[in-house]
Amino acid sequence: MSKETKAWAATSPKKIEFSKITRRAPDDQDVAIDIKFAGICHSDIHTVRNEWKNTEFPLVVGHEIAGIVSAVGKNVKKFKVGDRVGVGCMVNSYRQCDNCKDGEEQYCVDKVETYNAKDPKDGTITQGGYSQYIVVDQAFVLNIPESIPMDKAAPLLCAGITVFSPLNHWHAGPGKRVGIIGLGGLGHVGVKIAKALGSEVTVFSQSDSKKELALQFGADAYVATSDPKAFDGLERKFDIILNTVSAKIPLDKYLSSLRRDGSLVQVGAPSDPLQIAPFSLLPQRIGIHGTLIGGIAETQKMLNLCGEKQIFPEIEVVPASYINEAYDRVVKSQVKFRFVIDVSTM
Amino acid sequence: MSKETKAWAATSPKKIEFSKITRRAPDDQDVAIDIKFAGICHSDIHTVRNEWKNTEFPLVVGHEIAGIVSAVGKNVKKFKVGDRVGVGCMVNSYRQCDNCKDGEEQYCVDKVETYNAKDPKDGTITQGGYSQYIVVDQAFVLNIPESIPMDKAAPLLCAGITVFSPLNHWHAGPGKRVGIIGLGGLGHVGVKIAKALGSEVTVFSQSDSKKELALQFGADAYVATSDPKAFDGLERKFDIILNTVSAKIPLDKYLSSLRRDGSLVQVGAPSDPLQIAPFSLLPQRIGIHGTLIGGIAETQKMLNLCGEKQIFPEIEVVPASYINEAYDRVVKSQVKFRFVIDVSTM
Repeated sequence: MSKETKAWAATSPKKIEFSKITRRAPDDQDVAIDIKFAGICHSDIHTVRNEWKNTEFPLVVGHEIAGIVSAVGKNVKKFKVGDRVGVGCMVNSYRQCDNCKDGEEQYCVDKVETYNAKDPKDGTITQGGYSQYIVVDQAFVLNIPESIPMDKAAPLLCAGITVFSPLNHWHAGPGKRVGIIGLGGLGHVGVKIAKALGSEVTVFSQSDSKKELALQFGADAYVATSDPKAFDGLERKFDIILNTVSAKIPLDKYLSSLRRDGSLVQVGAPSDPLQIAPFSLLPQRIGIHGTLIGGIAETQKMLNLCGEKQIFPEIEVVPASYINEAYDRVVKSQVKFRFVIDVSTM
Repeated sequence: MSKETKAWAATSPKKIEFSKITRRAPDDQDVAIDIKFAGICHSDIHTVRNEWKNTEFPLVVGHEIAGIVSAVGKNVKKFKVGDRVGVGCMVNSYRQCDNCKDGEEQYCVDKVETYNAKDPKDGTITQGGYSQYIVVDQAFVLNIPESIPMDKAAPLLCAGITVFSPLNHWHAGPGKRVGIIGLGGLGHVGVKIAKALGSEVTVFSQSDSKKELALQFGADAYVATSDPKAFDGLERKFDIILNTVSAKIPLDKYLSSLRRDGSLVQVGAPSDPLQIAPFSLLPQRIGIHGTLIGGIAETQKMLNLCGEKQIFPEIEVVPASYINEAYDRVVKSQVKFRFVIDVSTM
């Protein structure tokens, strides 16, 4: 049976408001989820404000979803009613392409995003997690370990996997030196996860203002990049540097601070082009990469790690009525470090 | 015994002329080489014209050296008098760093370049291959297989290894699709080597003018990039694309034509910064890398492959008196495809 649920929808680029939407009846492969918490991601804001010029209004955004299974289709073996589950940025993919077969569904060109995408199951536009109920194919549902509080689990489904995936792919771990540029929503989880993996972690931030917090989150070192001598002594030091900053920043000094075969990974996506001097890459076979969230198995691995090591994002839980104000604060970087909507307040 | 030899030296950024230089007496580890041929590399021209602002005049350039062993130090086991040998862009390195221990001497920050570098053995400035005689530590001397003509061997020592190293490092071979941007001194060797490794090779060049040659060198496909539809159907096709072009060219379409985890490798080094839209990298975990020549063992592997598969660069052999004119022609891209100096004409 299809079901109506409360939601908060963007009715225009300027406003998110109370709404009701209808979710399809679960098919044999589907998991029905009562959503408890939904994180606010900067991508939600880009979408709502139609900055990518492809938003289908009205739209419910949200792809950091934590909830409880309320029903399962008859072929669902991985989940049962009452399970603590999460949904991230994808709700389906083609499954027959090399990317899907390799467990890298995030790179499937036919993947179905959690909101603002065409759902092949019923032809509707997918509606995201700022709602009380959702129906998702079991292949795209994650298990949330008991040891992670539900509200803190939500941001792991996008922010967490976004930083975990490059760290995992490029083998961050004992003996590896990781740099994290920016200590915001992504960066602060990056520090915690890189430490949990056993790496030595350095945070790069503009001023000294976040130093105490960075060290509190486990960073081994902190570099205030406004200091003209900030990069002295850092030549050829790092194996991986994650750039979590969306603003355009000069990258060449970071490239020089990578060891042979090191990589600077863009996880934020500035709209301005990156500018790189080729001579920053050649002398040590440096790479610049971009990554996009992570695969489903990789996301589960990240959740299990966070459960085991007790790694949680720093969050501010807000009622649904606060969403519009929260957006303004995210854009002004006035959040420590991630907003999570308590969807019981809808 | 130190020895005087004929050479052609840059006496100013504007002129290369006949000269005599003195080479040190070979030490126990050294190989003395009677040079037969020396290739002209674009780096020679940048150095002579002092475009990198660090040239020590007068200077003998040349780092594509093919010759015959005329004497060996008492600890030299790898070579004997009469052997056909080559010397490339390095004549020494620190040997104790991770890069050297990994056989990646080209990334040693204390490597000693074949010209315009301080030689730790005698404190002089190294002088390159535009001369009739050179003394080089055995660890940086390569064996030239009998099946490679000496004149054609010379350009392999820089141009050859420059394109072989990224192809080797990123595992070009059967089942892999390689793109080569530019069909000049580097690019044409890249095509031949990528084919010899078993890859499927596509050449990208501005117009159709080099199509016939590209196919003759073994390319499977040719794309004239001035065609507005040039990239249609090439989305996510290539595993590796080598950019051999020094001019600034738009890269985003090439990035979109790479498969997941594919890499665009800069082997040329434009002086302008690369400009890359982050969204060209993220959707398929694309990388942009830079590489620099190759290690000594890797260079030997390349020479052996070229000998076995009969892969030779296309060359125009010129007398020493033609060097200045040859430079002008290289800068105007009026060479097919590499000049080699017959040093017997000095």
